[in-house]
Amino acid sequence: MTETMLERRARLLGPQVTTFYRDPVHVVRGEGTALWDKDGRRYLDCYNNVPHVGHCHPRVVEAIATQAATLNTHTRYVHDMILDYGEALTGKFGHGLDSLVMVCSGSEANDVALRMAEAMTGKTGIIGTDNTYHGNTAAVSQLNAKKVPVGGYKAHVRQVPAPDNMEPIGGAREGQAEAFARGVEAAIAELEENGCGVAAMILCPYFANEGFPTLERGFLDRAIAAVRKAGGIIIADEVQPGFGRIGSHWWGHERLGFAPDIVTLGKPMGNGHPVAAVVTRPEVLGTFQDAFKYFNTFGGNPVSAAAAMAVLQVIEDEALVKNARDVGAYAQGLLRELQGRHEAIADVRGAGLFLGAELWREGKPARALCAEVVEEMRNRGVLLHSAGRHDNTLKVRPPCVFGRADAEQLAEVMDAALGAVS
Amino acid sequence: MTETMLERRARLLGPQVTTFYRDPVHVVRGEGTALWDKDGRRYLDCYNNVPHVGHCHPRVVEAIATQAATLNTHTRYVHDMILDYGEALTGKFGHGLDSLVMVCSGSEANDVALRMAEAMTGKTGIIGTDNTYHGNTAAVSQLNAKKVPVGGYKAHVRQVPAPDNMEPIGGAREGQAEAFARGVEAAIAELEENGCGVAAMILCPYFANEGFPTLERGFLDRAIAAVRKAGGIIIADEVQPGFGRIGSHWWGHERLGFAPDIVTLGKPMGNGHPVAAVVTRPEVLGTFQDAFKYFNTFGGNPVSAAAAMAVLQVIEDEALVKNARDVGAYAQGLLRELQGRHEAIADVRGAGLFLGAELWREGKPARALCAEVVEEMRNRGVLLHSAGRHDNTLKVRPPCVFGRADAEQLAEVMDAALGAVS
Repeated sequence: MTETMLERRARLLGPQVTTFYRDPVHVVRGEGTALWDKDGRRYLDCYNNVPHVGHCHPRVVEAIATQAATLNTHTRYVHDMILDYGEALTGKFGHGLDSLVMVCSGSEANDVALRMAEAMTGKTGIIGTDNTYHGNTAAVSQLNAKKVPVGGYKAHVRQVPAPDNMEPIGGAREGQAEAFARGVEAAIAELEENGCGVAAMILCPYFANEGFPTLERGFLDRAIAAVRKAGGIIIADEVQPGFGRIGSHWWGHERLGFAPDIVTLGKPMGNGHPVAAVVTRPEVLGTFQDAFKYFNTFGGNPVSAAAAMAVLQVIEDEALVKNARDVGAYAQGLLRELQGRHEAIADVRGAGLFLGAELWREGKPARALCAEVVEEMRNRGVLLHSAGRHDNTLKVRPPCVFGRADAEQLAEVMDAALGAVS
Repeated sequence: MTETMLERRARLLGPQVTTFYRDPVHVVRGEGTALWDKDGRRYLDCYNNVPHVGHCHPRVVEAIATQAATLNTHTRYVHDMILDYGEALTGKFGHGLDSLVMVCSGSEANDVALRMAEAMTGKTGIIGTDNTYHGNTAAVSQLNAKKVPVGGYKAHVRQVPAPDNMEPIGGAREGQAEAFARGVEAAIAELEENGCGVAAMILCPYFANEGFPTLERGFLDRAIAAVRKAGGIIIADEVQPGFGRIGSHWWGHERLGFAPDIVTLGKPMGNGHPVAAVVTRPEVLGTFQDAFKYFNTFGGNPVSAAAAMAVLQVIEDEALVKNARDVGAYAQGLLRELQGRHEAIADVRGAGLFLGAELWREGKPARALCAEVVEEMRNRGVLLHSAGRHDNTLKVRPPCVFGRADAEQLAEVMDAALGAVS
């Protein structure tokens, strides 16, 4: 890393836009689960979910290049690609989720979803969790739990306690569904009291930013019933668990067994091409469009649709959902073996290729240790990062082409790093 | 157009997402200023500003394809491309506008810009015009003049009368700068009275959606002075006039001769690739980042930066600013000739390759006639659309590789269409 490059970065982008790692990685090339830095050093990418089917997958690159050379325009003209993709994507959903709005980012998707809820209910209240992130627009960032909005949270936002493996709400893991529902019911009461009413509950159905706690099927049923009884709708933010990452299902809401009214998609959808979507029932879309007349110039352009279509096809053709399940289980098994050798590992959990190891020391969440392990692993050529309420969970969320040898390298390097820094 | 395709579109995207033209164009290929439909018919594109350097420009396609095959990841790692582009782009600005945030759409850019104003001033009031559009996020769509937001405009939004050639505010063209400033001063007084205070005035410096009235250099000076005196800052939304389209300058604010605090960029920046930016002074960026901790996953990724860099280089290498000036002047001259033959043409105006002909009939804005001319021109192979308060201006805003022969075809077809429908 040349000092000059970091100085240029701070000057142009601002010193507040931090990099990962004390010694930032100057990446120049990616392929599959590998990244290379400017000195030719190879890293195993155990963290990036955007390159869902692998860095620079040739079929996605080819789809982008071919369509970009043929036509790229907006959807005020008619083009096959968005229709073909829309049918293929909505075909992956049940519950009448047959229509979509294509946008450029998960933030735009959630921004639209919140307005859909407003249009459907005539109310404004939004319930999220107290340890979440759904994006960066002015409206959506109101839900951001890690950074209190300027001027404080607005009256229409309510944050409910998120489930957690090590510090379960209500005091015990087995009672968390009821404890979560009680939090939601309290939020509903407050929103009805303050006049906002309940427009929606928005949740990542994998509680990814909350530290992806282990939840049973049906976990959300009571909370969802309470929201529906109050007239609200359910938004499933599938940006992180979606597209088969969790191995057992295509979508997080299928795993928990509930029917969302709206699903939002983002990062992995185009393997890095800026494309995202809101999938919903036709009547939700219609009510939203009647109220807001939404149009997105770049949304669903032929190149974005082609990129997204290639991603869907690669997931199918390379059986990546099955790979996420199999390799994810294998990787989780390896981390469990590590747990036997490192007492700092208090919990190993996850589903498919979204897993992690939570670190505690002396009865407390080991944030500093976790940060040291992240740095040490980076120095040993394995890239990952931390998650959870205390940033004390090593978060593994690699491209879904992650293989068994990758899982073994991950475990070996985590083992060595834990040994070196403990 | 197959009926089936429109049915699929209505089912997937909603019937409210309208197409251009009664007989929508089913596009399949684009090159330069040409679009082809599925039957091989060629259209002259006189409307699309997204393909700024021409549909499917080979250098932009090559830049996207090469970078997509090499690396595409976010800016928590360090990469040259965003730095090289950031330096090249900010090098096109004066006024200390030396830093940037890269995002995916003009809407995201304006969403960020409004929060920058809030962070800089501690106030919330925003002044726009009464005939504008700045994007589609929940926050930005509050400024949308053509669609009243659900629940009405919020207290922090004030819309001031926009200048207009045919219906000048204050009653006469020569007094418009003062009339505009009086509107701004009234808005400031209201925002101070209602406790919001003045955070920013946001304007397209070409007043593109307002019908691009003819304005003299210095037009905004008094209004800007009033905003600054009230503690507010100035946001120039350069999505439409920027990147040399207006021929005389790279940016609309240079043409009017004022110094914005923030400039937002969008549609043409990546020739269709979803990339946009906010350019500002380092202290504005820093104050915003301290307050909001903004990060955009797709924003400034290596592929987006490569696409945007190729656009900048093509503008320079093909001298497209000069082309916009020369061909724009030639086209405007041809439209003035038409004005002599068609009494419906009440005004011809514009700058560079952003021009138009306003239609009036029997002393009234001729909205229906304008719509007929648009349809008739489409049927004769020339694509454009309408603009202005009454949608009675034929709006010409083609890719900036528009040539003299294109201008001649535009004028001939407009001539014939006006003759056919009048």
